[in-house]
Amino acid sequence: MRVTPEREDRFAFGLWTIGNLGRDAFGEATREVIDPCEFVRRLSDIGAWGVSFHDDDLMSAGASESVRRGELDRFKKTLDETGIVCSMATTNLFWHPVFKDGAFTSNDRNVRRYAIQKTIRNIDVAAELGAPTYVLWGGREGVETPASKEPSVALDRYKEALDFLCSHVAEKGYNIKFAIEPKPNEPRGDAFLPTVGHALAFINELEFPEMVGLNPEVAHETMAGLSFFQAVAQTLWSEKLFHIDLNDQKIGRFDQDLRFGSEGLKDNFMLVRLLESSTYAGPKHFDARPYRNVRGEGIWTFAEGCMRNYLILADKSKEFNENAAVKAAMEKAKVFELEQPTVGGYTEKALNSLMDTQFDIDSLAKQNFANDELDQLVIDQIFGV
Amino acid sequence: MRVTPEREDRFAFGLWTIGNLGRDAFGEATREVIDPCEFVRRLSDIGAWGVSFHDDDLMSAGASESVRRGELDRFKKTLDETGIVCSMATTNLFWHPVFKDGAFTSNDRNVRRYAIQKTIRNIDVAAELGAPTYVLWGGREGVETPASKEPSVALDRYKEALDFLCSHVAEKGYNIKFAIEPKPNEPRGDAFLPTVGHALAFINELEFPEMVGLNPEVAHETMAGLSFFQAVAQTLWSEKLFHIDLNDQKIGRFDQDLRFGSEGLKDNFMLVRLLESSTYAGPKHFDARPYRNVRGEGIWTFAEGCMRNYLILADKSKEFNENAAVKAAMEKAKVFELEQPTVGGYTEKALNSLMDTQFDIDSLAKQNFANDELDQLVIDQIFGV
Amino acid sequence: MRVTPEREDRFAFGLWTIGNLGRDAFGEATREVIDPCEFVRRLSDIGAWGVSFHDDDLMSAGASESVRRGELDRFKKTLDETGIVCSMATTNLFWHPVFKDGAFTSNDRNVRRYAIQKTIRNIDVAAELGAPTYVLWGGREGVETPASKEPSVALDRYKEALDFLCSHVAEKGYNIKFAIEPKPNEPRGDAFLPTVGHALAFINELEFPEMVGLNPEVAHETMAGLSFFQAVAQTLWSEKLFHIDLNDQKIGRFDQDLRFGSEGLKDNFMLVRLLESSTYAGPKHFDARPYRNVRGEGIWTFAEGCMRNYLILADKSKEFNENAAVKAAMEKAKVFELEQPTVGGYTEKALNSLMDTQFDIDSLAKQNFANDELDQLVIDQIFGV
Amino acid sequence: MRVTPEREDRFAFGLWTIGNLGRDAFGEATREVIDPCEFVRRLSDIGAWGVSFHDDDLMSAGASESVRRGELDRFKKTLDETGIVCSMATTNLFWHPVFKDGAFTSNDRNVRRYAIQKTIRNIDVAAELGAPTYVLWGGREGVETPASKEPSVALDRYKEALDFLCSHVAEKGYNIKFAIEPKPNEPRGDAFLPTVGHALAFINELEFPEMVGLNPEVAHETMAGLSFFQAVAQTLWSEKLFHIDLNDQKIGRFDQDLRFGSEGLKDNFMLVRLLESSTYAGPKHFDARPYRNVRGEGIWTFAEGCMRNYLILADKSKEFNENAAVKAAMEKAKVFELEQPTVGGYTEKALNSLMDTQFDIDSLAKQNFANDELDQLVIDQIFGV
Repeated sequence: MRVTPEREDRFAFGLWTIGNLGRDAFGEATREVIDPCEFVRRLSDIGAWGVSFHDDDLMSAGASESVRRGELDRFKKTLDETGIVCSMATTNLFWHPVFKDGAFTSNDRNVRRYAIQKTIRNIDVAAELGAPTYVLWGGREGVETPASKEPSVALDRYKEALDFLCSHVAEKGYNIKFAIEPKPNEPRGDAFLPTVGHALAFINELEFPEMVGLNPEVAHETMAGLSFFQAVAQTLWSEKLFHIDLNDQKIGRFDQDLRFGSEGLKDNFMLVRLLESSTYAGPKHFDARPYRNVRGEGIWTFAEGCMRNYLILADKSKEFNENAAVKAAMEKAKVFELEQPTVGGYTEKALNSLMDTQFDIDSLAKQNFANDELDQLVIDQIFGV
Repeated sequence: MRVTPEREDRFAFGLWTIGNLGRDAFGEATREVIDPCEFVRRLSDIGAWGVSFHDDDLMSAGASESVRRGELDRFKKTLDETGIVCSMATTNLFWHPVFKDGAFTSNDRNVRRYAIQKTIRNIDVAAELGAPTYVLWGGREGVETPASKEPSVALDRYKEALDFLCSHVAEKGYNIKFAIEPKPNEPRGDAFLPTVGHALAFINELEFPEMVGLNPEVAHETMAGLSFFQAVAQTLWSEKLFHIDLNDQKIGRFDQDLRFGSEGLKDNFMLVRLLESSTYAGPKHFDARPYRNVRGEGIWTFAEGCMRNYLILADKSKEFNENAAVKAAMEKAKVFELEQPTVGGYTEKALNSLMDTQFDIDSLAKQNFANDELDQLVIDQIFGV
Repeated sequence: MRVTPEREDRFAFGLWTIGNLGRDAFGEATREVIDPCEFVRRLSDIGAWGVSFHDDDLMSAGASESVRRGELDRFKKTLDETGIVCSMATTNLFWHPVFKDGAFTSNDRNVRRYAIQKTIRNIDVAAELGAPTYVLWGGREGVETPASKEPSVALDRYKEALDFLCSHVAEKGYNIKFAIEPKPNEPRGDAFLPTVGHALAFINELEFPEMVGLNPEVAHETMAGLSFFQAVAQTLWSEKLFHIDLNDQKIGRFDQDLRFGSEGLKDNFMLVRLLESSTYAGPKHFDARPYRNVRGEGIWTFAEGCMRNYLILADKSKEFNENAAVKAAMEKAKVFELEQPTVGGYTEKALNSLMDTQFDIDSLAKQNFANDELDQLVIDQIFGV
Repeated sequence: MRVTPEREDRFAFGLWTIGNLGRDAFGEATREVIDPCEFVRRLSDIGAWGVSFHDDDLMSAGASESVRRGELDRFKKTLDETGIVCSMATTNLFWHPVFKDGAFTSNDRNVRRYAIQKTIRNIDVAAELGAPTYVLWGGREGVETPASKEPSVALDRYKEALDFLCSHVAEKGYNIKFAIEPKPNEPRGDAFLPTVGHALAFINELEFPEMVGLNPEVAHETMAGLSFFQAVAQTLWSEKLFHIDLNDQKIGRFDQDLRFGSEGLKDNFMLVRLLESSTYAGPKHFDARPYRNVRGEGIWTFAEGCMRNYLILADKSKEFNENAAVKAAMEKAKVFELEQPTVGGYTEKALNSLMDTQFDIDSLAKQNFANDELDQLVIDQIFGV
């Protein structure tokens, strides 16, 4: 089993992930800022392939254009030197207090305008760095009190912002697609577009739905107790998996952003098996952070753990797929029979054939689908026994 | 304040709701079956307007066609006598053990076929009774072990079933639309189409998306900790609110189906305010059940409570909308400024105008949106003080 | 109905509550620090009675003793001038990164020693200010990875710390009792003493159990989906309600610390009814914070809302208790019959009498406890109709 | 690695577990009743050691004494023949509608009396069968509406019942201890004694606390999102682990009773490691049930899976404890330093020594506890790599 990452694995990390300062709602930072270029060189050393950034991770917010240009050029040079790819870009629309009431859906029109301006500025940077995907996480798009925003009006403004951004990218001819990252809550009490489903549905109402897909995140869907594996499967089914954020999380808790493969091992296994067998060719992007009491070299051990767990699970999923006992249990469970059309297209003949059938439902009810046997093979595979 | 329901309120109940037997996962029934015709007469007495049913609530499963016809005719006669409308129909695809692995997505093709056959049979009944909406709750569409169904294949089969049913209704010329009722889990560990969002997204992949909308249910979205109010708002925004199931629920618990307006009072208030100001003209349908230790006349007190709470909340929402203090607080919160377009359509001029603006973000950040004041007015309204 | 607070209501606020800066896990502060003396004067103006503090809220951490003495004296003077009581004190054992692995249960012995030292220093301040209760919230006592601490060893250290602190208070003759504040998670993934129950059980293992009780908090018990009302009732039953933290919260979310009476209205109502009828005579202490987009005078409106909602609920609970319809519904529900002993003390006679009884369980099963009727009266009371 | 169970492993199953009929809140039974004697023989075949029962699992409820005696004698004979031990007994106080308002805490005094009578009758059976532990699960002890029971009065009645039962056992000289099984909700909306903590605290208020301990269950503590591993550790710390119910569960869902070792693999691993290193010598009792779509031999595969996963995890925990890399990571994390007393007993010298110390907190804050490294070793151990 190979557990050392290679470039072809397309593992990517955001500057804010391994580089997270360990600040939380109840305490100060426990780690220091890492220089972005140093970060990229370390990424290269540990076998990663890509890097992603928020505008403010890379260039000093509020600094002069020449200072920002200098920061950007230095970063580009390091990308060139290391071969690390800029795999995704995104905007920080949540940190500064100006966004306290929202960004694209702030009740203040000037704040909304500023949010779009800030995003467009960074899209230009993303294009320059060759990032093919631009992520939109609506961290502050939501409410504490439901009376503060009419949700349908908020969705109108959200759509207006995305339509404008898509037009801009199309107009400029950038080779960039957008990926919405849904989240149910935190920092706001109730977010708009809380799940993969709500975001997929929203995309269908946009002016350029083909330019917008999803960036689902393990922790976010899991917070609401939903199966991330199934959410990603539906996203793929809708051909909208444009990016993915890998990390881990316990259900019903604050946003934990745990090391990928460290908590929901069964869902993680199914997810990797799904990704490995899918057409998804984008980055495997880790949006995780080291535990707050980790420092120094510990943060790179953390990063290696994320990739290691992905590789272990990929290897296990391959073994699982080739295991004859699994195939036999899947036969018992009639997994492959689900691939057979039930009735086919609607014709009079198909209808009559269906309606004329006498089903012996009591016999059908007596089948043993043997799902515990199949599930135990999943568990055995995870356990490696 | 009027708390006595009238027909124009369009309150409806399912036969299985007030008539729930009180059986649960750990205990036997505590109440006896109510005859559907007696049920309808009582509904009429308490001021309800509509009734809904599963096929097996109304006609004996497995009985001869003539017995079933007799049951149906007797029911129709009672509807005529009372003026109670048949407002919705649905299929029981979960009770019989034949559905233990799913219905439209059972791994057994014959079970899938039987599920479609059973549905079509009841659609004919629904058409005869004039029900304009046919609800599809996928109670058994899901998994305990994720390995037992490839989700994308399950979604293919789900879509196939709905496409077939839509074709049938179109072919027959029935005036019926479908409404999917999403639910995150229970009875299955993880359901397909777990939330309003996932179901809306699914509809967009169907052959006849215009024939299919949603039947969101308070309890189901709330189980996952999502705001039902926001979910219904997004459904309306997508023009897909075809029906609604009103009840109540605590977050993160088994499906409670509590009396509407008995638990999440703030979300209930916002919901009723939304419905009352919306274009939704369908039934206000209660899918709730009396507490298990209630019997006899207690079940009708329960039913009256559901309607009473809706009426109280409707009255409160009217008062809220007319309250000058609320308007003032909304001004402070800039609620109405959210209605102003942010940037409008994309033009070079609009872009330049946006990009040339210098925003004083520190000043913008210093606004007081006064959301606690606005929220307190919501609370005062609920408290009636 | 009186909604204006008076001193006798014993409403108290912590310096960190109304004064919260609005910093969260995803964004910077949105408000400025309020001077503690100014804070106390405003508390006095709005009718509050008490104030509480963490050591670091009041005196500059790391400053010289003379600076700290100056800050303390100035605060004492303001208390004297305003008549505001110092109702509780506590230690900040979570903010500085030194506590990143825990305080009393840090794996580093020096950190544990520092935590106890810091606490003892502030207990001396608490004694000087006349605070009768010293709260212990173990914000960092817990783990991200379960392998990092043997829980039984951690409990040994937790107990050791409390035994030492109790001895110190006894030795000094301070009139101070301790109150543990349980919380299930956040900031740590899994906290020790996660609920009211776990903390009550822990107290029984201490050297001076009589000196230690609880400070239950609405938000904390609610995060885990447990009934706060029932938790407080069990705390009272065990004679361990030494203090209480009032705020509000949605189940299964990050720690929200919402305005008291703004979310779980039914549980809030039952709680106030319980407190008002109990022997609890301590502060009604609000550990809540304004929404992050509130500033300026908005934070005092927030504070007034907390007290207003308590007073409204107290008035409603009085009305509820005096309502004849409530009494009748409670009779139907046999609420008062629960007060009758079931079997009394164990004697041969009592045993024989019990074992010889023939119960007609089918008849007993047919009672209508009419709980929906009783619950609707609760709802009517909350709605004020 | 041994994955075949032996008698010494002390694996036990309840008659209602493997024998569960697959009935749920939304559907009829999918499996048939298994004869208790046949059940015991199959248990023996698969290497189990013990069996447990509710009164109504073993003897026909409401049947004549001679019929019940016959059923009991036949069962005893099978136990003798197979060597299977009766490891625990309990009362069914939830299934019959007579318990719809509670058992020991029903508002109806006769129901309360009947519940105690039913329990005493079965305690006599338990004594005859040599069961050393009698479990008390308060399935119906709780409320839907909080107004229906004053919680402190309910706790009085709960205590009264347990005091009476303890007296009876003491009086009869039975070698039986009681074990309370806490659960947060389901079937009631809010249960009394919702967690391990609340039940431990309750025991301290009983007349014979030494006769009563806990039977914690994975699924129950996990439903509330609490760490079962930590809960069991606290139970052991309080010397109250009298029995244990092993199964599995997702957080924030209906009671799933999944196959042990099939969901929360990390918590399961920590739990088995804890049990294997503890003084607990009671049964490893599985209170799980096959997935509802499993039948026939599938239910025995399920049972074997429960034991297999325990054995695998026990083997893994042994390896983990002996792994030098684990020890090194624990050193980095200072796991063993937590065993050192922090301050020792309170003396003037200890106090002065503590208060005189100058801690360099900024240096202490800069330690790397390397918890991600330690956690990855847990994950590697679970993965078997």
